[in-house]
Amino acid sequence: MRVSAKHLSDVTVALLKAMGVDAREAKTVADNLVMAEKRGIATHGVNFLPLLADRIEHGQVIIPTKVTVISDADAVTHLDGGNGLGQTAATQGMRSSIDKARRFGIGLSLIRNTNHIGLLAYYTLMAANEGLVGVCMCNGAASMAPWGGAEPFFGTNPFSVAAPGSDGTPVVLDMSTSIAARGKIRRALRLKERIPLGWALDAAGSPTDDPQAAMGGTLLPIGGPKGYGMALFIDLISGLLAGSKYSRDVKTFHKPEGPTGVGVTTLAIDIARFMPLDAFRSLVGEYGRAIRGSAKARDTGRIYLPGEIEAERERTSAERGIEVDAPVCQSLDKLLEKSGLPMRMKDGEVPA
Amino acid sequence: MRVSAKHLSDVTVALLKAMGVDAREAKTVADNLVMAEKRGIATHGVNFLPLLADRIEHGQVIIPTKVTVISDADAVTHLDGGNGLGQTAATQGMRSSIDKARRFGIGLSLIRNTNHIGLLAYYTLMAANEGLVGVCMCNGAASMAPWGGAEPFFGTNPFSVAAPGSDGTPVVLDMSTSIAARGKIRRALRLKERIPLGWALDAAGSPTDDPQAAMGGTLLPIGGPKGYGMALFIDLISGLLAGSKYSRDVKTFHKPEGPTGVGVTTLAIDIARFMPLDAFRSLVGEYGRAIRGSAKARDTGRIYLPGEIEAERERTSAERGIEVDAPVCQSLDKLLEKSGLPMRMKDGEVPA
Repeated sequence: MRVSAKHLSDVTVALLKAMGVDAREAKTVADNLVMAEKRGIATHGVNFLPLLADRIEHGQVIIPTKVTVISDADAVTHLDGGNGLGQTAATQGMRSSIDKARRFGIGLSLIRNTNHIGLLAYYTLMAANEGLVGVCMCNGAASMAPWGGAEPFFGTNPFSVAAPGSDGTPVVLDMSTSIAARGKIRRALRLKERIPLGWALDAAGSPTDDPQAAMGGTLLPIGGPKGYGMALFIDLISGLLAGSKYSRDVKTFHKPEGPTGVGVTTLAIDIARFMPLDAFRSLVGEYGRAIRGSAKARDTGRIYLPGEIEAERERTSAERGIEVDAPVCQSLDKLLEKSGLPMRMKDGEVPA
Repeated sequence: MRVSAKHLSDVTVALLKAMGVDAREAKTVADNLVMAEKRGIATHGVNFLPLLADRIEHGQVIIPTKVTVISDADAVTHLDGGNGLGQTAATQGMRSSIDKARRFGIGLSLIRNTNHIGLLAYYTLMAANEGLVGVCMCNGAASMAPWGGAEPFFGTNPFSVAAPGSDGTPVVLDMSTSIAARGKIRRALRLKERIPLGWALDAAGSPTDDPQAAMGGTLLPIGGPKGYGMALFIDLISGLLAGSKYSRDVKTFHKPEGPTGVGVTTLAIDIARFMPLDAFRSLVGEYGRAIRGSAKARDTGRIYLPGEIEAERERTSAERGIEVDAPVCQSLDKLLEKSGLPMRMKDGEVPA
C-alpha cells in the first residue's frame, strides 16, 4: 500500500506515544524510521514498531530514555544509553560530537548500552547539514563469521559517513560490512523470495539462496577478510572500547531476549578548520559533476553519488507517498487496534 | 633470493643516502619499506627504491622533506608535505595525532602535497604500540571507476586501523578499497602471472585475468557500490578537504609525471579516556581467543586476526630472512652499482 509520508509519520508517533514514549523521543524515533522508509530502506523502517512495542512491554527497552554522561572532557564523550531508545542515545552522541568538533576541530562520542539506532545516515546527515563531516558506526547481533569461520560472531556492523554537498544535498554513504544487510534477508523471508547466491552461507558453511537457511547460517563480509576486519574494528571501538556488549554477546532486537547492549560511535570533523565551508561545498559540487560525467560502463544509464538514489527517493516519497509492504501494513494496523487508536494505514493511502 | 632483514635494511639506507636523503629520513623510509617486506607485502617494499631514485633525480620529490604546519589548533593539525618523502610526512602526521589524542582524547591530522607513504600499518602501529587506536588513510592515482563507470577516477584508496593487543602484538587491518591492490597486479605483470577474474575490468569494462589489460582498465571495489563509496570518502577527506590533489589529478608514483599530490589522514584515539589500557588489552586478548576458538569452516586450519599472518611473517623474516623477487634484486643491484656502492644483494643472502 502507498501511504503519505505525513500519515506514516502520524501513525508512527501515535504508536510510540501509545507505547509510553514521550513526545520529544517519539518525534526523534519517528523521524528516523520514516526517513528510512522515505529513502527506500524498508529494512530499517516502521517494521521496527511492533518489535519495539514488544520490547517495551517486556521491560527490555527502558523509557523515557535516560542517557548518562560517563565522562565528558576535551574532545571526547562517553555515554551510557540506559538501555533506552537507540535513536535518542545516538542523536545525543552526534549532538555532542558536533559541539565538540566546533570547539576542538573533531569530536568523538562512544555510547554503550543502547539499542537499535535505526538509519545511520540520519545521524551523519545531522552533521553534514550543519557543515561538518559526520561518521557513525555501531555493532549488532552476531550474523557474520570471522574469515574462515562458520559461526556467527560479528554483527553486520554498519557505518555511515556524510559530508555537505554543493546544492544542499549532502553526499552520504550508509553501508553494512556484509555483502547484504540482514534486514534484506529478513525481508526476503517475509516476502517469500530467494536471495542471490554470494550473500550468505548456511549453517554448514555452504552458499545458499534460501533466506531461511541464511538466517541459520552466516552472512558474507564484503571483500572477504577485508569486511571481516572492518566488522571486527567497528565492534572493537563501538562495543568493546565503549564498554558495551560486543561480539556474540550483543542480542538481536528482533526477539525479546534481554537488553541488546548495542554500542555506537559518532564522530564529527569541522570542515572550516581546513578550508572555508563554501569552498568545500563548491569543490564537492565540481567533484560530483566530474564523477557523474565520467565514462560509463555499457548498460549504465547514470552514475550516482553515494546517497543520491536515496535522496531522490526521499523527495519522491514526500510528493507521492511511501510504498509499505502488506505484512508491515497489517502488523501496524494490528498494533493500532491493540493500542485503541482509531487511525488505520489505509486512511493515508495515496494512488500509486 | 632470501636476504637477511638487516642486510636489506642496510642496502635500503645506503641507497637512500646515495640519493641524497639525510640519515633521519633514510631510517624512517627504510623502516617502512623493510617492514612491508618483512610482513610479506612485497608490493609496498623495496621495489619503490628505483622509482624514488628516479623521482629525486627528476626533482619530483624534494629532499630534505620540509613539512609545513598550515594550522595546528586544538585537536587538529593541517600539514603540507612539501612534495617530499611520504613516510616523513605521514610519520609527523601520526606523531601529531598521537600527541593531540593524549591531550584531547582524539587527534586528527590532514596532510596535503606529499607522496606515496608506503605501508599504512606502519603508522597505525605507531599509535597501537603507544596504547592508542590509530587510523590512517590516503588517496592515490586513479585506478577504480565510480560504480557503473568505466574510467579510472579514484585510487584504491587504502586505510589502516590498529589497536593494542594483549601480548604486545597489536590487531591491525591494512587494506585497499579495491578487491586487489594495484601493486598485486603490477607484481603479476612483473612475474608474468595471470590475475583472478573479479579483480579488474579491462578498458572496455569487461572482466579480465590479464594484468596488462587490467592496468589499462579499472580495478573493482570491494562490495561494489560500498567500496566505491569508501574510496570516494577517503579521497574527499584525505584529498579534497586536506587541500591536496584528488580524484583523477593524483599522479602515480610509478612514472615521473610530476608531483603525485597524495593526501593523507591520520587519526588517534586515546583508549585511556574510555577504560584503563590494561583492561582494554586484557579484553582484546579474550576477544582474540574467542575469535580463534570459534567454529571453523571446513578446510579452514586456523582463524587469524587481522594483521596476525603479517606479524608472524615479520617474526619469521627477522629470523630467517626475506624472500625478494629476482627482478627487484636485479634492480637494486643495478642501483647500488650506479650509486658507486660496493654492497650487493647477495652479500646478505641466507639459506632458504
